[in-house]
Amino acid sequence: MTTHSATLAIDERVQARRAAGHDVLHLGFGEAGLPVPPGLADVLAAAHRRNGYGPVAGSAEAREAAAGWFVRRGLPTGPEQILFAPGSKPLLFALLAAIGGAVVLPCPSWVSYAAQAALLGRRVVPVPVPAEAGGIPDPGLLERALRRASAEGAGPGVLILTVPDNPTGTVAPAEQVEAVCAIAEHHGLAVVSDEIYAELTHGGSAPSPVRQLAERTVVTTGLSKSLALGGWRIGFARTPAGPWGRRLHRELTGIASEIWSSLAAPMQAVAAHALNDPPEITARIAASRRLHARVATAVHGRLLAAGAHCRPPRAGFYLYPDFTPAREALRTRSIATGTDLATALLDRYDIATLPGSAFGEPDTALTLRIATSLLYGTTPEQRHAALAADAPETLPWIASALTRLGGALGGLITGGHPG
Amino acid sequence: MTTHSATLAIDERVQARRAAGHDVLHLGFGEAGLPVPPGLADVLAAAHRRNGYGPVAGSAEAREAAAGWFVRRGLPTGPEQILFAPGSKPLLFALLAAIGGAVVLPCPSWVSYAAQAALLGRRVVPVPVPAEAGGIPDPGLLERALRRASAEGAGPGVLILTVPDNPTGTVAPAEQVEAVCAIAEHHGLAVVSDEIYAELTHGGSAPSPVRQLAERTVVTTGLSKSLALGGWRIGFARTPAGPWGRRLHRELTGIASEIWSSLAAPMQAVAAHALNDPPEITARIAASRRLHARVATAVHGRLLAAGAHCRPPRAGFYLYPDFTPAREALRTRSIATGTDLATALLDRYDIATLPGSAFGEPDTALTLRIATSLLYGTTPEQRHAALAADAPETLPWIASALTRLGGALGGLITGGHPG
Repeated sequence: MTTHSATLAIDERVQARRAAGHDVLHLGFGEAGLPVPPGLADVLAAAHRRNGYGPVAGSAEAREAAAGWFVRRGLPTGPEQILFAPGSKPLLFALLAAIGGAVVLPCPSWVSYAAQAALLGRRVVPVPVPAEAGGIPDPGLLERALRRASAEGAGPGVLILTVPDNPTGTVAPAEQVEAVCAIAEHHGLAVVSDEIYAELTHGGSAPSPVRQLAERTVVTTGLSKSLALGGWRIGFARTPAGPWGRRLHRELTGIASEIWSSLAAPMQAVAAHALNDPPEITARIAASRRLHARVATAVHGRLLAAGAHCRPPRAGFYLYPDFTPAREALRTRSIATGTDLATALLDRYDIATLPGSAFGEPDTALTLRIATSLLYGTTPEQRHAALAADAPETLPWIASALTRLGGALGGLITGGHPG
Repeated sequence: MTTHSATLAIDERVQARRAAGHDVLHLGFGEAGLPVPPGLADVLAAAHRRNGYGPVAGSAEAREAAAGWFVRRGLPTGPEQILFAPGSKPLLFALLAAIGGAVVLPCPSWVSYAAQAALLGRRVVPVPVPAEAGGIPDPGLLERALRRASAEGAGPGVLILTVPDNPTGTVAPAEQVEAVCAIAEHHGLAVVSDEIYAELTHGGSAPSPVRQLAERTVVTTGLSKSLALGGWRIGFARTPAGPWGRRLHRELTGIASEIWSSLAAPMQAVAAHALNDPPEITARIAASRRLHARVATAVHGRLLAAGAHCRPPRAGFYLYPDFTPAREALRTRSIATGTDLATALLDRYDIATLPGSAFGEPDTALTLRIATSLLYGTTPEQRHAALAADAPETLPWIASALTRLGGALGGLITGGHPG
């Protein structure tokens, strides 16, 4: 049986709890939590005459815009290297289907990689992430895991990296990305680099594997996170130049033609507009990047204050605290696993998070994935105010959520009463 | 290697040929070829604030509208039985993934069923269609094929029916649908009923398998054909009531959550509006149904005049002529297969069609799938005029295309010169 994506499942559970009258603090879902960027509503409305299927890979206009977007980020790219899809999820699925072999994953990693591999009957080889930052396997452990998997006949075919990372909200250091790419090259792996958070790196840019392993790295991305357009379902991939990349693009387009046909044409028009980097879009991304960094940093402070270990946030809107330091205190409250911890937070405090087990960790890990982006408010006015604020963490609705989270964690760990 | 969907591939080939200056008569692609129905542009524009992912199966509003749509068509349905997706293709793929077992298909049948089964590593059991109408296996041959497949250990799990049918443009007779459903029930098969052309049945309604095998039949459909919205990618499925149907809906939603998340929220708003059957939508469907019937019937006349066998069109905008009666004449022009025939039409006359082999037939069959919907015109004005005309086949651009097709077929078969 396939299980429902853990991230989407917690969102539906929260909506049901809210419908039943609960005041839920929703830290469980990686939705960017911001209004549609300026200009895009008009582009969508103007695209209504586009009702034909069009080319599977995307319109010439959309593919040229995406290629230019990569070029302006320092990566020579032609429109023939681009493939659009209704989100980056279908692209990741098609990539696993096209490339074949066992799927090597950092652990923890985003919920759907392993689930997609399971749907395709592929074995997963999980490799723990380094101490500094997630999204890539620890280079030393990777080499060992690949040798063992090959010896067992598991035939690793593809390594998925997440740079910047969800669930940890970190950016892997360039030298570690280089080391991982060198190992992948040595073992003949293809690399899928999920870069959907690249525009949301809090300071500077993230080191893409495509710069290390140009001919064997596919980049997937989309507008769901940087432009808060999860519900518009716009994703795209960049396949490498060179013969392997050209064959892969053909194969992916074939799979796309049989599973989803094309990205909705009006959404391609939106992508063509936004990927030309008009100034109001660039400004919106910059503002949301600042907001994500400020609020994630504030939540990070509450987690440390409650006694958790937690890597400092460097991109996106995620934190991945580890409550091992509080293991004994939690055990006295019958909390022995990450799932126990997430359940206690939801049942006793109406705070929604996800346990590390949703991201491939053993449930004995006392880890949680905390998404901070749904703290920005529930109304468009609150969200615009959060975008505009110099210190968004001091806005009343955000500050009170921070206090509530701190109180709940304190209550669970020290036995204080729910605040 | 996956091959590119034949129908989408011919469309891209035609666009390339046109870009190179050719005047191509495009009979190769099942796009409805009509303008966006009235009212929907405003609905799309008004939905621009919906940028959240929302529930995987679709918003409550969209699922209620879809359930009501089925109820008004005589099929009691609750919103919990509905699942939306970016087109019906992903739903068909998820159904094959969820149900398991070998995939039993009518032959010929739509190009993507067998391709999806191949992507999932599933065996296909093709069974020829009856003489009268396609979309279902011949009942007598089905029983035999299932016994043989089971004896060979192929474990048939799901039977896909297309009612009304693409590629034949016909509607299976009710008694044959009943016979096929009885056999499916006896063998414990699930039935997937692809009803994307149901609203375009030229006279009356099509007999849905769901009325025979209620607890084991899943209906897939969408707005691509009846509302000419292929490029908006709106599909939905109705799972059966009862425990099997409930389990299947959960399983499908799980797969959806890992492969595509949800249908784009603005497109769900469009679906919610259109599926409430507002009068201007009902009128547009009625007008397009008349247009499809008139033009398909006119093309049918040309095919018979050229000496082909061809079932009369009863739904949608397809014809499936068989040029066996002209086999000897065609052989003198080095045309021995359906592919030869389609290639000659494209290379010598710039007329695009697809050979029967794209639909699972052996290439020795001299069959073509002809889509008539791209004859309505290339401008919105021509298409509106076609919708409004009492005798659209007499409009100059349609009449001349008919003449051109007749001349090309005559030329190929009798050796006359291209007209």
